Amino acid sequence: MANDQPPRPSRRGFLKAGSAAVAAGASLGATGVAQAALGKTPAHAADPTQAVEPFYGLHQGGIVTPQQSHTYVAALDLTTANRDDVIALLRAWTDAAARMTQGNTAAPLPTGAAARTELTDTKADTPVGAKADATTGGTADNASNNAAYSPTNTKAAPDSGDVLGLGPCGLTITFGFGPGLFTKDGKDRYGLAARRPAALVDLPRFNGDQLIEQKTGGDLFIQACANDQQVAFHAVRQLARLAYGTAAMRWGQSGFLSGPRGQTPRNLMGFKDGTNNPSTAKPQLMNEFVWAGATADAPWMEGGTYTVVRRIRITLEHWDNTEVDFQEQVFGRHKYSGAPIGKKNEFDPVNLKEEDKDGNPVIPENSHVRLSNQASNNGAQILRRSYSYNDGTNFYIERWPPWRQETEYDAGLIFLAHQSDPRTGFIPINEKLSKFDMMNQFTTHVGSAVFAVPPGAKPGSYIGAGLFET
Amino acid sequence: MANDQPPRPSRRGFLKAGSAAVAAGASLGATGVAQAALGKTPAHAADPTQAVEPFYGLHQGGIVTPQQSHTYVAALDLTTANRDDVIALLRAWTDAAARMTQGNTAAPLPTGAAARTELTDTKADTPVGAKADATTGGTADNASNNAAYSPTNTKAAPDSGDVLGLGPCGLTITFGFGPGLFTKDGKDRYGLAARRPAALVDLPRFNGDQLIEQKTGGDLFIQACANDQQVAFHAVRQLARLAYGTAAMRWGQSGFLSGPRGQTPRNLMGFKDGTNNPSTAKPQLMNEFVWAGATADAPWMEGGTYTVVRRIRITLEHWDNTEVDFQEQVFGRHKYSGAPIGKKNEFDPVNLKEEDKDGNPVIPENSHVRLSNQASNNGAQILRRSYSYNDGTNFYIERWPPWRQETEYDAGLIFLAHQSDPRTGFIPINEKLSKFDMMNQFTTHVGSAVFAVPPGAKPGSYIGAGLFET
Repeated sequence: MANDQPPRPSRRGFLKAGSAAVAAGASLGATGVAQAALGKTPAHAADPTQAVEPFYGLHQGGIVTPQQSHTYVAALDLTTANRDDVIALLRAWTDAAARMTQGNTAAPLPTGAAARTELTDTKADTPVGAKADATTGGTADNASNNAAYSPTNTKAAPDSGDVLGLGPCGLTITFGFGPGLFTKDGKDRYGLAARRPAALVDLPRFNGDQLIEQKTGGDLFIQACANDQQVAFHAVRQLARLAYGTAAMRWGQSGFLSGPRGQTPRNLMGFKDGTNNPSTAKPQLMNEFVWAGATADAPWMEGGTYTVVRRIRITLEHWDNTEVDFQEQVFGRHKYSGAPIGKKNEFDPVNLKEEDKDGNPVIPENSHVRLSNQASNNGAQILRRSYSYNDGTNFYIERWPPWRQETEYDAGLIFLAHQSDPRTGFIPINEKLSKFDMMNQFTTHVGSAVFAVPPGAKPGSYIGAGLFET
Repeated sequence: MANDQPPRPSRRGFLKAGSAAVAAGASLGATGVAQAALGKTPAHAADPTQAVEPFYGLHQGGIVTPQQSHTYVAALDLTTANRDDVIALLRAWTDAAARMTQGNTAAPLPTGAAARTELTDTKADTPVGAKADATTGGTADNASNNAAYSPTNTKAAPDSGDVLGLGPCGLTITFGFGPGLFTKDGKDRYGLAARRPAALVDLPRFNGDQLIEQKTGGDLFIQACANDQQVAFHAVRQLARLAYGTAAMRWGQSGFLSGPRGQTPRNLMGFKDGTNNPSTAKPQLMNEFVWAGATADAPWMEGGTYTVVRRIRITLEHWDNTEVDFQEQVFGRHKYSGAPIGKKNEFDPVNLKEEDKDGNPVIPENSHVRLSNQASNNGAQILRRSYSYNDGTNFYIERWPPWRQETEYDAGLIFLAHQSDPRTGFIPINEKLSKFDMMNQFTTHVGSAVFAVPPGAKPGSYIGAGLFET
């Protein structure tokens, strides 16, 4: 593995680490550099391509970070039997992720290559300087380890190069560990079985689940979010490449979120989605519902979270053929304003006890809002951070009357929810929804996964160090 | 069909057409309205969400329009046996497309609904006014016809509503006609067989083609391009819904293009793509290579074009494992600068005759640039307007040694090329490329289609009127 190898002579011709960072700093301008250095969160920068999110910190990015416009999420399966390989991979991922979130390529490019964030001049011959690498939060040594990490072809391009010129785009990269890292087929592959958190449960089968094996599960999780589709995919692609020989892609999925900035975005069903999320601006809510504590079984998860992913296909064709009144009954909200039924404004409180003059509930019994509301779930809350997805069309055999067989959209929701414990979060909420939600006649869960997302890394360390080293 | 029906009483509760346009005008501001009225092309507006492209005109939009950041392309198959149904559909599509490109919903929303382009206030109760509908280039009557067009459920929501608040986003909608509109299975379904242009040939099978039936062909084509992914998909979705009972989706595909504005964007292989395109700023080039003339067999195509679509999957995993030098030999260009091999700058001319000191060609014999260059193709040029696509991952059995069977990206290029005649454009160029291009070991053509794209419509008329009415 990379860590055991001496520096390779083949790295002649590469600049010292930091060269790309110089270019990044130069074009980011003073503000961008200062923000990166201070660890501020300018997610809603005036120019979203120039937003920079910190990589290192108490928590990983991409959880309470204001949601970027695009994501690429992926799960990989570990193919190595060697614990050290896993650690080396996590080190390489950490270093590359730190570079990329700060607007750099995954590894330094050769002299004279266009800088990642350089916007107007593709011929830049940028001077070398190690100091500016501080903006990556990493060190030259980190980057060197990274570049030396065993790709199959050691002379292969250091980075796919497709995001040169695109800017940091507020990129966050979030890593998670699936059940298979701890035990797989009954085997404790890496000596980690005893450290598996009780909260990292295998999800039960829910009513109506139509899970596709190739879109479900995974040993390792990467969530890349950015204000540009190519930047998000680029990040996962470089990381997956660093994993060649150690882990292989199990599934990948791109997603997007379109919305006027600062407003609740509308999902593909045309309704505002996320109105009732716990506020990320309230640390006590995040501590209660999102961040994992230091439990006796998994002290290494303190400051982490548990992430549930569900790929939910929506039969938009049939939804579009329904009346707005009906759609509002399904959601329990008004379509255009986003207000709870009977109310005027989006953020008016949801009153589940209200009845109309005939004594019927104003918010229908089987509406999505009622069933998912914390008042219906012993106060449970989860932080949803979902994206729409659109993978074109496929031929489907429907599971509802009249059982049409036809080409339909393969589009819907990449449901992503973060919580301190899925046993009190997603699982009981979805048990209820999967049985009673009126929306189910339009939605099918076709992919599913759960991951333990460890806390953020310290500079010089790596994601998941607490799991392997304590 | 809609055109034969009286106005329905069920339209009570809808505003007159024009209300949404008022709101659009209001939030576009004076500049946006003026540009729309003048038919200008502010595709690179300071705020790309506020760009407005004209719908009516000599040519359809989306051909020489500066390329927007996203697309959704789709093909539909006609299911009706009735020529009048096809005309009614094209009328409804024209009216809805004109509305949507100007930032409106496909049909008017009920009173009090949020306006499409309204960005800050979701409670807007916009005053009604017919005059502002001039910005849509349509009329109130057009919109009425549209709203009355037979969806299966006549009371269904007039628009899916998912783009409320998102702005016009420079949306263009381009319609095309596939061979199946003229003859299908030997049948002249709509009395149009004699009007099929000779240039609308069935594409030959090319070397290496691995076409998937469900991603190939189609009777009708829609290309929606916008500076927002959801806006592009929304357009096709509303149009497909208007086709219920007349035409059904055959395939749909979303695409994206990330690039610093005003520069040639990089494709997923990391190379600049489109450098050698004929300049859309030169009308004589467009007339020679892009716009169809008034041929004797198809005078109705004057001002139109012929569009070839190819879904080209790229094995990015293997590409990423190759050296930059090799990648440059494949393309015939330098990766970072985009210059032809041996040159410094992207737009330096490609000199195919240049040799190195050993007498070998500087630009390799089987490089993509050499084989596709007009000097290698009797001067032929096509206007490429391609997008990258990313549909996650699939399990593949490779067609090259070592015939890996594994999960790989389903990502690559939605190749879109416009030309005055495919027989002198795409076909001979791709005959050569499909046999000799070094790039073929990384690319697989899995979808294909060709369409006659008629000229633009006049206000009050509809796309394709010349085909049906002369």
